[in-house]
Amino acid sequence: MSRRSIDPARLLRRISTLGEIGRDAEGRLVRLAASDSEKLGRDQFVAWLEEAGLEVAVDHIGNIFGIWNGAGGEEKPIMIGSHIDTVINAGIYDGCYGVLAGLEVIQTLKDEGFEPSRPIVVAAFTNEEGVRYAPDMMGSLVYSGGLDVAAALKTLGTDGTLLGDELARIGYAGTHAPGFMTPHAYVELHIEQGPVLEREGLSVGAVENLQGISWQRVTIDGDANHAGTTPISMRRDAGYAAARVIAFLRDRAKSSNTPTVATVGCIAFEPNAINVIPSRATFTVDLRDPDEDRLKEEEAALAAFLELLSAEEKVGISAERLARFEPVKFDSAIVRLIEAAAGDRGLACRRMTSGAGHDAQMIARIAPSAMIFVPSRSGISHNPKEFTTDVDLIAGANILLDVVCGLATGELPE
Amino acid sequence: MSRRSIDPARLLRRISTLGEIGRDAEGRLVRLAASDSEKLGRDQFVAWLEEAGLEVAVDHIGNIFGIWNGAGGEEKPIMIGSHIDTVINAGIYDGCYGVLAGLEVIQTLKDEGFEPSRPIVVAAFTNEEGVRYAPDMMGSLVYSGGLDVAAALKTLGTDGTLLGDELARIGYAGTHAPGFMTPHAYVELHIEQGPVLEREGLSVGAVENLQGISWQRVTIDGDANHAGTTPISMRRDAGYAAARVIAFLRDRAKSSNTPTVATVGCIAFEPNAINVIPSRATFTVDLRDPDEDRLKEEEAALAAFLELLSAEEKVGISAERLARFEPVKFDSAIVRLIEAAAGDRGLACRRMTSGAGHDAQMIARIAPSAMIFVPSRSGISHNPKEFTTDVDLIAGANILLDVVCGLATGELPE
Repeated sequence: MSRRSIDPARLLRRISTLGEIGRDAEGRLVRLAASDSEKLGRDQFVAWLEEAGLEVAVDHIGNIFGIWNGAGGEEKPIMIGSHIDTVINAGIYDGCYGVLAGLEVIQTLKDEGFEPSRPIVVAAFTNEEGVRYAPDMMGSLVYSGGLDVAAALKTLGTDGTLLGDELARIGYAGTHAPGFMTPHAYVELHIEQGPVLEREGLSVGAVENLQGISWQRVTIDGDANHAGTTPISMRRDAGYAAARVIAFLRDRAKSSNTPTVATVGCIAFEPNAINVIPSRATFTVDLRDPDEDRLKEEEAALAAFLELLSAEEKVGISAERLARFEPVKFDSAIVRLIEAAAGDRGLACRRMTSGAGHDAQMIARIAPSAMIFVPSRSGISHNPKEFTTDVDLIAGANILLDVVCGLATGELPE
Repeated sequence: MSRRSIDPARLLRRISTLGEIGRDAEGRLVRLAASDSEKLGRDQFVAWLEEAGLEVAVDHIGNIFGIWNGAGGEEKPIMIGSHIDTVINAGIYDGCYGVLAGLEVIQTLKDEGFEPSRPIVVAAFTNEEGVRYAPDMMGSLVYSGGLDVAAALKTLGTDGTLLGDELARIGYAGTHAPGFMTPHAYVELHIEQGPVLEREGLSVGAVENLQGISWQRVTIDGDANHAGTTPISMRRDAGYAAARVIAFLRDRAKSSNTPTVATVGCIAFEPNAINVIPSRATFTVDLRDPDEDRLKEEEAALAAFLELLSAEEKVGISAERLARFEPVKFDSAIVRLIEAAAGDRGLACRRMTSGAGHDAQMIARIAPSAMIFVPSRSGISHNPKEFTTDVDLIAGANILLDVVCGLATGELPE
């Protein structure tokens, strides 16, 4: 197995440089999709692509590609991708790490005279975070044919802008049709954004699937009555009913012995007064599971509990679907390549499920895909505290290097 | 027993007239303590006192008294009282009913040539609601010596005003020292503000005690992590812990077979995002019980549960006391007078506990006191939907008439 390595200093320097682009007056990293500050990040990335001698292509939705045609110009390319837009007050690793490691892998192979059997491409997909324009993962969704590009360009932003206008304004309304290259395989390297690798003392995650997501908003209606004068037996307490749901979801997930996770992240009571029984409780439910049947089971169990609770507590309950994504199964051959690379380098690795959404789940619609995770300290992301050690960053990039080499020499998949 | 009656039409007309004074541009009834609109209500009340031939006295904290000296000018008076300030968007009965029924009782007795053994006084206490100036029940608290009048007059309002300045401005900074008359007995007639009388089909409540109140704010600190990537076993979920407390309080109160009530009326999660595990949950706890030992037991049980939960869920929990009032026991002789009056008039009556705070609890510090309740439709108060039927209003006022006659002819208490 190859003991070649990417250039650690160059990769770390680029991560750090890109992480300083788009700081606001308070020093917060904010590169929202198609904004002025994101343009600066894009310009830097394109400059690095050109410095590495790659062909730069931009498509109608603003996805940026750095293409190394190498020897096998007619073949379908190996694509490495992620995104460089950020949330508000972001960390420096989420997305950027995968894009810059992709560039690093190509530049390393190119510089050492490696001869791939097919082109290798690094991609930075537009608007993965979805903060300014919904939905998230938009660039990869459009690229894989899941959303019409004309409709996507008409997306109205939270600031009243149209995505298409903003892309044109910053000079990234490209000329290529989304999907103009169908990948032979797609690999995405990303920080875990969860605590599993760190807590288990592992360096690498071979991501074999991605959870399905079910988001709902539940509204419970009871009676606002005086907290002092209304006997417990006469209450229709929407807040208490909400508490029962929260406890039900968590206790069920905890005792299920499955990867199911359930979270109630938002809540509001009305009238929200210390001495008034809540007449209304509104809260969100985030259910995730890598298995579609099990996700459906969890949704059904919640619905059944809500019905029971409504009768028991004499409260009105309605649930509204906010979002629903089926689980994604990644390509097992690529997952095995990742495991093999980690084994060859003596890095502790486990198969795992991605709990967050990624561009890879969109590209998986059109090409064999998988992801590599590296540890996130304390599982924190979308936050300036987001952190991965240099050692882990370099190790992850070298695993990516090995996997791309394997794919580029025709090892897998066929 | 007397079959005398108050003048129903006059009482109902006055309730309705006072209920139209202090409407804002949207038609909401808003007579906050010592405001311009409350001045109009006070002026109307004083005009009725003068029309009835009563001596008007105002004390330093703005409490208004209508005094009928009658025959026994040297004796300690029987005092009937409540308040005419309101919350924002109030109903027309809370407080005003008791004050106007007090005036009605005195006017009825005076007009028919009744000869009381001691003075009879109707009182409208300042700032019972506590919306503009805290604490609530301020006028009766000051009157009973529980709060220094100079300190009370310096109270800073939510609108930046000082109560003393505002009382002077509206012409109700009176000349009498609070407490200038020590009542022989005090009776307060009030709407129940709860559902018990209505649901049990009763006309009258003989209020024998008033719940102790314990208000706390509980703060739970966990970790904000990604809802998708953090396994259930690794979570420190402040929102789940809060739900456990809400369920604990309610289930304990429900199964206790005591009058204990527990309410969580306010809640907030941080960061309050659909896909983030709450790092912090803040909520209020309102515990009430007419028995001080039991109230202490409930507080201790909550504290013990919070300690257990903190260890179980690895969350930080702190509780801050917001308010604490011991239960008040009313005078049993007056309570028996109320029951007897109801029996003589063939009105269904029960002894009950007041779940809300009232001026009577303050005056109980200096004189034998009790309260009479009439039904509140659906238990609603502090709301334009507040409603009591004319029949119940008239019946309650006639019970008050009988009780005052009893007290004024020396029946009780001694």
